This record gives sequence, C-alpha cells and structure tokens, in this order.
Amino acid sequence: MSPTPQMHLCAFLFSTGHHVASWRHPDVPLQNGTDFQYWKDLAQLCERGKLDALFLYDGAALPAMDLEPMSRMDRVTFFDPMTLLPALAVVTDRIGLVSTSSTTYDQPYYVARRYLSLDHLSGGRAAWNMVTGVNTAEALNFGAPLMAHADRYARAREFAEVVRGLWDSWSDDAFVMQKDTGRFFDPAGVQMLDHQGAHFSVRSPMCVPRSPQGQPVMVQAGGSEAGRELAAETADMIYSVQDDLEEAKAFYADVKGRMATYGRHPDSLKIMPGVYTIVGSTVQEAEDKYGALNELVDGGVAMSLLSWCMGGHDLSGYDPDGPVPQDLTTNAGTTHLKQMASIARARNLTLRQLGTHVAAGGYGHWSVRGTPTQVADQLEERFTGKAADGFNLMPATYPGGLVDIIDGVIPELQRRGLFRTEYTGRTLRDHLGLAVPKRQVRA
Amino acid sequence: MSPTPQMHLCAFLFSTGHHVASWRHPDVPLQNGTDFQYWKDLAQLCERGKLDALFLYDGAALPAMDLEPMSRMDRVTFFDPMTLLPALAVVTDRIGLVSTSSTTYDQPYYVARRYLSLDHLSGGRAAWNMVTGVNTAEALNFGAPLMAHADRYARAREFAEVVRGLWDSWSDDAFVMQKDTGRFFDPAGVQMLDHQGAHFSVRSPMCVPRSPQGQPVMVQAGGSEAGRELAAETADMIYSVQDDLEEAKAFYADVKGRMATYGRHPDSLKIMPGVYTIVGSTVQEAEDKYGALNELVDGGVAMSLLSWCMGGHDLSGYDPDGPVPQDLTTNAGTTHLKQMASIARARNLTLRQLGTHVAAGGYGHWSVRGTPTQVADQLEERFTGKAADGFNLMPATYPGGLVDIIDGVIPELQRRGLFRTEYTGRTLRDHLGLAVPKRQVRA
Repeated sequence: MSPTPQMHLCAFLFSTGHHVASWRHPDVPLQNGTDFQYWKDLAQLCERGKLDALFLYDGAALPAMDLEPMSRMDRVTFFDPMTLLPALAVVTDRIGLVSTSSTTYDQPYYVARRYLSLDHLSGGRAAWNMVTGVNTAEALNFGAPLMAHADRYARAREFAEVVRGLWDSWSDDAFVMQKDTGRFFDPAGVQMLDHQGAHFSVRSPMCVPRSPQGQPVMVQAGGSEAGRELAAETADMIYSVQDDLEEAKAFYADVKGRMATYGRHPDSLKIMPGVYTIVGSTVQEAEDKYGALNELVDGGVAMSLLSWCMGGHDLSGYDPDGPVPQDLTTNAGTTHLKQMASIARARNLTLRQLGTHVAAGGYGHWSVRGTPTQVADQLEERFTGKAADGFNLMPATYPGGLVDIIDGVIPELQRRGLFRTEYTGRTLRDHLGLAVPKRQVRA
Repeated sequence: MSPTPQMHLCAFLFSTGHHVASWRHPDVPLQNGTDFQYWKDLAQLCERGKLDALFLYDGAALPAMDLEPMSRMDRVTFFDPMTLLPALAVVTDRIGLVSTSSTTYDQPYYVARRYLSLDHLSGGRAAWNMVTGVNTAEALNFGAPLMAHADRYARAREFAEVVRGLWDSWSDDAFVMQKDTGRFFDPAGVQMLDHQGAHFSVRSPMCVPRSPQGQPVMVQAGGSEAGRELAAETADMIYSVQDDLEEAKAFYADVKGRMATYGRHPDSLKIMPGVYTIVGSTVQEAEDKYGALNELVDGGVAMSLLSWCMGGHDLSGYDPDGPVPQDLTTNAGTTHLKQMASIARARNLTLRQLGTHVAAGGYGHWSVRGTPTQVADQLEERFTGKAADGFNLMPATYPGGLVDIIDGVIPELQRRGLFRTEYTGRTLRDHLGLAVPKRQVRA
C-alpha cells in the first residue's frame, strides 16, 4: 500500500474537447462523433495514463438552440454511449467505463440489464452515472415537457432503488451447472424484487447474473439538496461542479457528513469535481492556447449556448454588454446555473463575457491553466485540502489536451506519490478502493 | 454476378443451442450466458462460414415458469443483446449483426439511436428484429399486464414509423466540417420529424448521423395477419416460422404478393424461415445425436416449457398421455401456437410427446436431421421451390451443431453454387442484395 493517499482521475470524453471551438483547432481530427477509431484511440490513451475511468455524456436530443448557431458546433451528433462502451471494453483491459443514463425516460429493468451486461463484458469495469435529464429538447423526444425538479428526483430515487434490487437478483454461487444431475442453477440463489412503487412496478428477477463488481459503480451529480442527500445514501462517486475552493471544501464536508445517517463510511464515496484544463509548457503557452481557441468562438454560438445552459432562458431582450440577469431560476440544471451566476458575480462579468466563458468550456466547472507543475499543484491543493478525492478531467481539446495531462501532469503527480504508476487491480472498484457491496437478501 | 440465385443464411445464436438440454451435452462449454469469449468464438465461427448475419434473441425477463423446472435449463440468463453486439462488432469484420428489440416497453428514440449507433460502429452491419414481446413475465417487469395482440401491433407500427423517420434526420452530406468558416454542418441537412401519434410524440432530430446502410436492416416475424401486412409494407427480412413445405410456399407467395400495394419489388424483402438442424456424417449419427439429447431432457422441464410456449396455458389439469387440448388460443405468440397445434395434429402427438418436441428445440420451426448432403437437399428444395429466400439456422447445440453446418452443409451448398464462397460486400445490405433506402425528405 502506498503511504501517501492517492487521488483518482477520470477523463470526461466529450466530442473533440470541452471548448466549444475545439473542432476548429488545427490539430484536432475532423469527425462527427461516430468514428470508432477516434474513440478507441482516446480510450487507449486514457488507459496508458492509468486513469481510473473514462466517462461518457448522454443526451437523447440535439441541443435546445437555433439551428444556425448549432450548425457551428460539433458535439451535436455522437454515439449512444451504452453502444460505444461495450466496444471500448473490448479494446481496453483495465480502465473503468462510466456512462451517463437518464432515469426520466428509460425503464429500470433495461438500465439495470444494460450496466450489468457491460460489467460482465468488461470484467467488472462498468459504472452508471445517474442523471435526471435537464435538456428541454430531450423531454420533447419522449412525449412530455420536462418534469419538475422534485418529481424528477422522486422518480430517480425509486428508479435507482429498483435497479439495485434487480442487480441483487442472483447470488454469486447460484450457477452450479451440474451436467450430471441436470441442475443448472440453485433455485435458492435467485430472488424476486416484486417492487410496487409510485413510479414503477417491477416483478423481476433480472435475466443477467450478479455483477463481477458485486454491483456496477454508481455515480451521481449531487449538486442540489435532494442530490446531495441521494448521493450520501447511495452513490459510490460524485461528479460535482465546484469552482471556488472554499465552496468545494464545504460541499465535500457536507456530503461526507451526511453519510453516517445511512451507516456509510466517508471513504466509500469518492467526490470528484470536474476540472477544465489547458496545459502548456509555459504559463504563456497555456494562455496562448486558451486565447487562440477563444478567437475561434462564434459570437452567436456563445450567446445561444449560454441561453441553453440557462435552461432555455431567453436572453434576446437583455443587453449583451450589461450585467447578467439576476433571475436565472428555471426548472433545469439548478446546480450549473447557480455556479454560472456565482462566477458572473465574482468576476463582475457582462452577459457577453459570461457567454464566452461558457463557450470556452467547463460548463461552470473549476478551470485551471498553466504548466504541468502548476496544474499538479492546484490538483494537490484541492486533494490534500479535502475539497476532492480526485477529479473528472475536462481538457479543452482531444486528443491533444489529454496528451498534455497524461504526459505532463500525471508524471508530476506520480513523482509526488499522488497517483498510481500501475493499475493494481482489475475492476473499477479496485481502482477506486471501494468494497464489493454485499448482496441484499430479502425476506 | 453468380448465374445461380444464392440463398441467405443467418445463425440464431441462442444460449448453448436450441435443444433445451444442449448445455448437458459433453462437448458443450459450461457458461451462464455472460462469457464473452464464448460469444466471440461463435461470432467468428459464423464469419468463417460466410453467413449473412448472426441473430440474437431478446427477452427482458426470466421464462414464465416455475423455478424448479427453470433451474434445469440454461438460457435463463444472458447478455443484453444490444450490449453484446457492439462488442462483437469489434471482433468481426463482415458479418451482419441482428438483434431483437421489443416495441412494447421501449422508446422509439432510444431504439433508433441504438441501432443507428451500432450501424456506424460496425461499418453498416446492423439490423433490428422488431418484436412486440409475448412473454407475460416480461410485461410484469414493465408495470403492466401483456397488451392485447392488436394493441401491441398498433403500437409497433407507429413505433417503427417513428424509428425510420428518426433514421432520416440527417442527409448524407450534412456534415461539411469546415474549420476555416466555422460551419460544422449544413442546417439544410437536418430535418425535424415532429411526430404526434396515438402512442408517441417525438420531436427529433436524432443525435446520430444517417446510417452507413442508409438505414439499418429491418427484420420482422410477420406470422399473423397484422404481421404479414406490416412486413410487406416495411420489412427487409422476415424471420418466419414454417414447418410444412406447402404452407411455407403459401406464406411466401402471400407476403410477396402483398408488397405491390406498397410499391415494393418482391426481391426487396427476404423471407427466411427458421430451421432447426442436427447434422451427422450418417443418417444414423444424426438420429443418435438427437436421441442422446432427448435422453437428457427432464420431464418437468418439457411440460413447463410447453406451457410457457402456450402463453402460460395451465396444462396441469390435462392428461399428459391424452391428446393436445384444442383450445390453445391465448393472447401471446399466436403464430408459434398455431404451428405447434398443427404439428400435434399432423403427427397425432400426445401432450407429453408435444412437450418433448418443444424441449427438443425449434419452438415450432421446421426441423431437419441428416447428413450434410441431405440437409443441403432440403434447404435447396425450399429455396428453389419459392418457400424461402434463405434460412435462420437454429442448431441443436453450440458450437458443435454450427460447426457441422459450416464445415459440412455450407461447402455442399457452395459446390452447388447456392451460397457465397466469399463476402463480396461490406454491409449487411450488400450481403442480402438490398438497396440502400432513399432518404425521405419531409415538406
């Protein structure tokens, strides 16, 4: 065992990078989201960097913005993440595979079956990032307006409970497979869920054996009050959005503090805020990279993207060079909204400046720019300062921005003993230092 | 071009074989459905045989039977097929990839996105076998009793219409990706569906580009009157259940005859009945294989399986050695039920004998046993006699039963010019000789 606690690192693989103009960068390969070779190369790059996991976004719609600005972005089309991950499982060996799936439009039996199958296929590397879906355009593809935040969370809570129940359908030793006696499985090794709830009625059992990890890893966003509580009760990992160091520490302490109520040890939940990165060999090079990317942002794209990130808030009536409107409360994505409003206040940004900030990427997440040493310093400060157990890396461009981290920042972290130099386990739970959940047996 | 018309062949990969006792056969590897190496070997075997496609079953439930008999079967647990296929796409190069998905519990946006993603991932090898779901246990995992047959079909028809509309969201040349001008896609290259129907309301567009095949291949069962009509209108392939030669010819003529109404050429739909196979180097060897497998069938399993295949019809009140009850009409799987009733009548079977027949496999499908030459003769007779455009192979055991076909029957068919010796195309539509569908542009 390492004497120094080590941080965890995931890469959030999103399109050609988290900067909206990344695709226009000269070094970024042209593709419309469905070039498997591109994704395979990225996944193998993550594994070369010994990252805990790669992380995929989900969204069953185009962005809720006008076609003209939308047509100036990539990231509009992409693989269904749960179709891409099984393919990436075959071309990788150790890295964890996290996909996002919404609880608002899907069925718990399907979601449970899919992640359990991926866990078997990958030898115990699957994780489900549970979201409730904040895209109004997405809701319209499923025949309904966006549900209210509280309703989405109530449904999500029940959804997750059913999924975990389904994952425990089979005991680990149920499959005796005796050719001579003709007994394939032990009937005592399978249990019914017989769930009857407000949102779902699911009899079960699951038609997939128990997971090599006990259960796939559960990831949540956990920003809102309801989200924090649900994460403290059930999540293995939080992908949080935290810009300010003190707020990040407070969030960390708050969520970890809630866990005792549920009989959980604080270490059994890994809090991993997103971090938007631009790395250069000098400070000036990092700043120049950032500036060059910002030069490529179309003004209409920036304002349209900002409006979308505000849950479709119509910004056309506001002065772009005036202050950010105070009333940003909508039904969608409250955590990100609050982050953006807070960033605008703290930096005294105009609406246009906030638009550029959003287009530059990170969606309200913490942003770091600098040399590998400087970036490592900042990650170390938040890690040792109990603001994070690790980070979800969000480079401005792919693959270049990730190469900068893997060949620059990670060796620096390794020198400091803050990150693994080799995988020591096989499963994502191994990498994260999480115990295999005990199967819940019903009466 | 070959002067002789050639048949098409798919392999229906189901558990360790289509005989219920296959897993007890000494040569069959022990696994509970989630050993990826087993599936990889099977898929590569299919590709070595130059088959058009491999075919996966779906079912989001355990069989609707008692635990005691169920525990004597494998095939109870298995990979989610749409999680397994992307992984198989990576380890194969040419073979088509067909999965079954139900229209009764899923959402058209999700299904459309999944198959479109698989089509991109596999370079144009995806096919969707659309079913409405006949398993009563499955319905209970989605909070509802099984819908009536007519309602399932009405929903299926609308579901398929929405899926095909979503698949046509993007033009083939929409993605201009001009780094210099900043234009990623041409706004004229994307269209809204704005579907408002009895079952679904879907705005679109799809967040995946158009398919390398134009559209993924559409497969249907097409047994019932409603099924025949829907297949004649929309299917690229039918996986039918036809035991009797004359009935198979009549079905073939009937469905092909319905296509003109929809402006379709008969060759644009491939009718491929299932065929259950046991191949031996001599007739006696084939019969011995069959007999040895039947010896391994548990009596309780056979009757329980029969009851399940009859849509949960309670058989406990009937004399096992009496005739098969006349009244088999239920809401579930009418085509298979009719086939089984017809087989029982034609062969004057008792209930117990019909149970053994069902357990032996094939689920009402045509069954052939014999030497490679005899099996080839029978396939040729149905192919040249306009009873089939090809076949869905259902060997009694895997991998052995499939090896017998690939190393025995297929070389014989190739010698007769009835089957390809090499793939000549890249996509499943290429293999099947199906045109790329023209994109439907809405006003």
